[in-house]
Amino acid sequence: MAIKKLILDLDTGIDDAMAIAYAVGAPDVDLIGIIGSYGNVVVEEGGKNSLKILELLGATDVPVYLGESHASHADHFDRLPISASIHGENGIGGVTLPEAKRPLETTSGVDFLIDAVNQYGKDLILVPTGPMTNLAAAIEKDPELPNKIGNVTFMGGALTVPGNVTPYAEANIHQDAEAANAVLTSSLRSTMIGLDVTLRNILTKKETQQWRDLGTKAGTAFADIVDYYIDAYADFDATLHGCVLHDPLAVGVALDPSLITSFDLNMIVSTDAESYGRTIGDTTRINEPNPNVTVGLTSDSARYLKLFMTYLTDLFKQH
Amino acid sequence: MAIKKLILDLDTGIDDAMAIAYAVGAPDVDLIGIIGSYGNVVVEEGGKNSLKILELLGATDVPVYLGESHASHADHFDRLPISASIHGENGIGGVTLPEAKRPLETTSGVDFLIDAVNQYGKDLILVPTGPMTNLAAAIEKDPELPNKIGNVTFMGGALTVPGNVTPYAEANIHQDAEAANAVLTSSLRSTMIGLDVTLRNILTKKETQQWRDLGTKAGTAFADIVDYYIDAYADFDATLHGCVLHDPLAVGVALDPSLITSFDLNMIVSTDAESYGRTIGDTTRINEPNPNVTVGLTSDSARYLKLFMTYLTDLFKQH
Repeated sequence: MAIKKLILDLDTGIDDAMAIAYAVGAPDVDLIGIIGSYGNVVVEEGGKNSLKILELLGATDVPVYLGESHASHADHFDRLPISASIHGENGIGGVTLPEAKRPLETTSGVDFLIDAVNQYGKDLILVPTGPMTNLAAAIEKDPELPNKIGNVTFMGGALTVPGNVTPYAEANIHQDAEAANAVLTSSLRSTMIGLDVTLRNILTKKETQQWRDLGTKAGTAFADIVDYYIDAYADFDATLHGCVLHDPLAVGVALDPSLITSFDLNMIVSTDAESYGRTIGDTTRINEPNPNVTVGLTSDSARYLKLFMTYLTDLFKQH
Repeated sequence: MAIKKLILDLDTGIDDAMAIAYAVGAPDVDLIGIIGSYGNVVVEEGGKNSLKILELLGATDVPVYLGESHASHADHFDRLPISASIHGENGIGGVTLPEAKRPLETTSGVDFLIDAVNQYGKDLILVPTGPMTNLAAAIEKDPELPNKIGNVTFMGGALTVPGNVTPYAEANIHQDAEAANAVLTSSLRSTMIGLDVTLRNILTKKETQQWRDLGTKAGTAFADIVDYYIDAYADFDATLHGCVLHDPLAVGVALDPSLITSFDLNMIVSTDAESYGRTIGDTTRINEPNPNVTVGLTSDSARYLKLFMTYLTDLFKQH
C-alpha cells in the first residue's frame, strides 16, 4: 500500500502548530502541503506561521498555499478579540520565530487541493482544522471531489456538548456555517472531531516541561508557545486544568481512527441567526441508509496523549 | 432471578397507550403499577385513559396512581393545543372507550414509587415517558432512591437531533426542565430514549391494519387510536411516513437494552429561557469517570418492530 498523503488546512494558531508537529512527527504519513485559512488569525499570517513552524521542525520541503481569506457569504474577515487572547496577537503565543526562508506558494490553496485529489485520490487524507471555506470552494469547483478523496477528518462542530462561541456553535463552523453545511450535506464522507471529543484530550504543563527539558530550539519554542495557550485556557475555562488538543487530535484520528468511538449521522449546519453554526442531526434524513458523517464521541485519551508526546518529543529532540 | 417488576410513569396519550400494551404483552416482566402524569393530557384524564386501556387489554389487576399535576416550578398545567392535535381531545385519538371499572388509587404516585423502590430495589424498572416531575419529587423525598432502583429508562430529550417543541427541546423535558435537570445531575444512572433514537422507529397503517384484521375489540380500538396518531403525524411531519414509537420504544429498551447503540455522558438540562429544556453534555464534567446517562443513538429498528408487533398482536388477539 502506498504511504498516505496528507494535506492540512489550517488557521495557524497554537493547536494548529501542534497539528503540524504531529503530522511531521508521525511515521506513517507524507505531509504534502498545508493550505492556509483565516480564523484564529488572518490568512496571510496563518500561512506565514505554518512556514515558520515547518522550518523550526526541519520540514522545509512542505509547501504552504493560501486559501480563501474570508467566509463564503462575506467580503472580508474580522479576527475576533477572543482569538488574540487564546492564540496571542501573532497567533503563536507571542513567541517570535524567524521569518521562514521558504516563501508562500503562488498557486491558490483551493486549486492545490483539487489537483492533489485528482493525483492521489483514495490515498489522500485532508484534515481541515479551521473554517470549511476552502473545502466547500473546492467541491463547488470540482463537484466530483467528494467521491474521489480518501479521507476527510475535520476539527469542528459540537453535537453532544454546547458550542464555544455560542451555546450552539463551535468556532470553526461558526466562521462559515454556509460552507460547513454545503460540505456536510454533500456526498462527502467525513469524520467530525468536534468539541465532543477534543475536550477529552488535555495537555498540561507537565508535558510541555518535558519539551523544555530537551534544551533544543524546537522544544523550547513549543514549550513557550503551548504554555501561553495553557495560561489562556486557565483564564477561559479553569475546569480543564490544561489546554485542549483540538487540531492535533484530528490529525491523530485521521491516521488512526481506532482512537475514538463514534456514530454515523446525516447532519445539517444551521444558518439561522440564533443557532448559526449549530451542527445537528437532520431529522428529515435520519432513516436514510449510510449516513455520511462519522461523529467522534469519546476517545482513548491516554493512548492518544502517549502517541502525541512520542511523536512531538522525538521530533523536538532533533531540532 | 426474580422476574422484573415494571412501573410506567405516563401521560396517556396514544404512544403511552402503546407502551402499556407493550408492557402487558411482554412475557418477561410484571407490570406492578402505572403512575399518571400531566403532559399529553391533564393528570386525571391520563390516569383514566390508562385504566381504560388496561381494562381493554384484560389487565385489570394493574393499579393506576396519580402523580403530580403540574411542573415543579409552576402552580398549574395548561395543555398545549399541539397535544390535542396529535393525541386527540381525549388523549386517545377521539376513540370512546368505556369508563374502567377499576378506580384510580388514592395513594399518590410519588409515594407508590418510593414504596416500590424500597420493596423491589434492583429488581425494579421505572419507565417515565412524560415529564420528570414525579421522579424528581420522589428523589427529593427519598434522596437514596437513585442508588436503590434497578433501572430507569426514560423517553425524553434530544441530543443529536433538534427538539420537537423548540429547536433545542423535546416535549417531555420541556414540560419541566428543572425536574429533568435534578434527575440527570443526581447520582441516578438512567438510559435516555430521546428523539435521537425514537425517530428511527416508525409504525405505519400497514401494521395497524394487521390489528384491525384481528376483528377483536382491542385490535379494532388500537387500530382506530393509532391511525388517528398516524394521520396527525402526516400533517405534522410528512417525511416520517407513519407515527413514531416514542414511548413503547422506551419500554422495549428497558426490557432489552441490546436493541440500541448508545454512549454514556454526564448531562445537564438547560433552564435558560432561549434553550429551556435542552438536554446536552456537561463540559464541566466531561472528563469525570462513569458518566450516568446512557444515551440511545441508533436502534435495531427491524428487530424492535418485530417484537412490538408480536407482543401487541398476540395480546390483541385475546381481547
